[in-house]
Amino acid sequence: MTVRNVRSDTWPRPVDFAPPPTGADLERWATADRDARPQRLARLRARMEEAGVDGYFGVRREHMRYLTGFTLAETEIPSAGNSGMFLVTPDDVRVLADNRYTIQARREASHARLFDCYNNLGERWPILLAESGVRRVAVEAGFVAHAMWQNLAAAAPGIELVPVEGWVEADRQVKEPTEIERIAAACAVADRALASLLPSIRAGVTERELALDLEWRMRTGGAEALAFDVTCLAGAEAALPHGSPGDRPVRSGAVLLFDFGAQVAGYRSDMTRTLFVGEPTSRDLAVYETVATAQTAAFDALRAGLIAARHAAPLPDGRSIDGVARASIESDGRWPAYQHGLGHGIGLATHELPSLGRSAAATPLPSPTVFSIEPGIYLEGETGVRIEDLAVFDAAAGTLELVTRFPRDVVVVGS
Amino acid sequence: MTVRNVRSDTWPRPVDFAPPPTGADLERWATADRDARPQRLARLRARMEEAGVDGYFGVRREHMRYLTGFTLAETEIPSAGNSGMFLVTPDDVRVLADNRYTIQARREASHARLFDCYNNLGERWPILLAESGVRRVAVEAGFVAHAMWQNLAAAAPGIELVPVEGWVEADRQVKEPTEIERIAAACAVADRALASLLPSIRAGVTERELALDLEWRMRTGGAEALAFDVTCLAGAEAALPHGSPGDRPVRSGAVLLFDFGAQVAGYRSDMTRTLFVGEPTSRDLAVYETVATAQTAAFDALRAGLIAARHAAPLPDGRSIDGVARASIESDGRWPAYQHGLGHGIGLATHELPSLGRSAAATPLPSPTVFSIEPGIYLEGETGVRIEDLAVFDAAAGTLELVTRFPRDVVVVGS
Repeated sequence: MTVRNVRSDTWPRPVDFAPPPTGADLERWATADRDARPQRLARLRARMEEAGVDGYFGVRREHMRYLTGFTLAETEIPSAGNSGMFLVTPDDVRVLADNRYTIQARREASHARLFDCYNNLGERWPILLAESGVRRVAVEAGFVAHAMWQNLAAAAPGIELVPVEGWVEADRQVKEPTEIERIAAACAVADRALASLLPSIRAGVTERELALDLEWRMRTGGAEALAFDVTCLAGAEAALPHGSPGDRPVRSGAVLLFDFGAQVAGYRSDMTRTLFVGEPTSRDLAVYETVATAQTAAFDALRAGLIAARHAAPLPDGRSIDGVARASIESDGRWPAYQHGLGHGIGLATHELPSLGRSAAATPLPSPTVFSIEPGIYLEGETGVRIEDLAVFDAAAGTLELVTRFPRDVVVVGS
Repeated sequence: MTVRNVRSDTWPRPVDFAPPPTGADLERWATADRDARPQRLARLRARMEEAGVDGYFGVRREHMRYLTGFTLAETEIPSAGNSGMFLVTPDDVRVLADNRYTIQARREASHARLFDCYNNLGERWPILLAESGVRRVAVEAGFVAHAMWQNLAAAAPGIELVPVEGWVEADRQVKEPTEIERIAAACAVADRALASLLPSIRAGVTERELALDLEWRMRTGGAEALAFDVTCLAGAEAALPHGSPGDRPVRSGAVLLFDFGAQVAGYRSDMTRTLFVGEPTSRDLAVYETVATAQTAAFDALRAGLIAARHAAPLPDGRSIDGVARASIESDGRWPAYQHGLGHGIGLATHELPSLGRSAAATPLPSPTVFSIEPGIYLEGETGVRIEDLAVFDAAAGTLELVTRFPRDVVVVGS
């Protein structure tokens, strides 16, 4: 494919993208969450019944919010103690909170009953279980620390702890309409922020300055938080798939990679754009086109899968789609393909199911779902290019819709 | 005690506080870390020898940085997989990294040997141990998930996993000189940011706007990151010890509480100031004085303990100091004392050892160390006051020095 070459007179502009969410949007989404919670709990309770447990003890922050409404930021987790942990039983939801969080928990998890616990879960655990009549409890083994597991086992020796992983994760990958709306809103915040940043990019400005500037544009443009720290990498640094911005100045004649995302009403976006500062080198342009071609190949394979599914074929799996994009780069043969995965689901977490990668499950993709498609080519010490878009994959509608709207053109800045 | 009443003509000014760290400071601190790492590892190895283990497997982000140099933000942890986890043996340090992090790990953990691992630790674990000749390995049981523990146990059944907690935490509470310097530098960034914010505070501005403004002043004033999300709570909201800023406007005649901190070269600050918007009510002023008096009582008790220690008494313990501040509020008798702890250590983590609270260990405080002293009074539905300063407690020097320099006066804003 040949990507369009875009200069300042045809740059994407902030007004090209959806405006920030309004107060009415935020209220509507909060209501939708409250209305959806009984169904979310019903799915979990069906799993509980099937596994023969009468309780589900959860600690993962995304699950707290999804099932109970209680909301903690990642940065709050280390000091929250047991607050936010929760127990679901066939007819009740208990949310643990110490006095620092009582008022918040009452507001956010209004349908749940609070259970007072101040970092003394070992002591309070038998009381919690006895109050709820629980005898056999599923525990999020991928997130409960081993030491806590041992404490719980010792505190109530008559209770069976059943390690479970992936139950709520599996449910969360299928998105409700207002979850998709919020991811799209987060994408628009990010799209708009990058569009508004373009005129500020010039040789000499540092990666760190641009990262902070882009962050500020998101935080004042509708994002309640970042999805993750902004990546801004100039020239050869772009070869680090998870590099951090430094005091390196942007140089003319080199690429400039931004990987960033916003959070809107709990839901996240994630996008990568590799821009060109000044005149692109023919090598960088060729790398860019190779990556864009691989991404298009993945889009095409997903759309072909949706068409086949209308004729009763199973939906494609994430491993095969990764294979398509990877093969596109490998068949070109000039540069090695990315070593990471092609993409990941996104929602309350930046990285969640489904996974599109070499080690992903070879099972059909869920639907409707949202995931990233982000092939890259990394030439250590030379250059790096990644292009990342979020797409809504919807088998019922038969559509793959990009919710990242910032164009994939070659965007030339700083000249 | 009577606190001074400060209006706009005598407000603290940004120039009252130390300037942001320079590039030379950052380099000096990086060098100091590299130089200190052999001693840090030696302390850990002494613990290993005492416990009869020939390996220490760590996963906690603060320990990665402290012992190896590899640095992950809290928000990066969920997507880092096994990268950054590390194994210390009597004569080696291995840092796990997948290809996304290889270059970063080589730069940051330059003395460690990398071990390639892409979310397949179960598979790679026996190889890691065999390469290092490890037979009995201490594992950070408070941070390794139970499911991962089970995987490791199953992957190498001949290897004994020894659950350990608190080893590195205990070492980290005693601070090196340049760790204290960095905490003080982070305090100055926060002090200066609040001083520069004062003229912007007026009735009608929302908590969220002020929180973002204060964050921006820290992020552009020398902070590489925040220590945690800024808390800004107006009036009755200040009664929530861990509340989040909302769209509530600041009101005249009410308090305005800021709890915030900066991060400088990995090290954090944490401070709380409760300001008065417009004319303070006599109730709010009396609450403020009661809290300030309790804080002073804690300072005095700590200083008395340092003097007694010169005459061979043991250093005071965190539980008794909490008791002194709590008793000060309780003996006043008008309002209930804070339910949280009086204070916590701080460094690479916002909350770390030592703990000053009712459930803290009744063992002498470490030295030199840095901790917060943050009594509060919370009247639900009415008002809340907390005052939080960081102090360096140094038995060898015989000093308790406040590194939060923003005055504790009654600061009146917005009028």
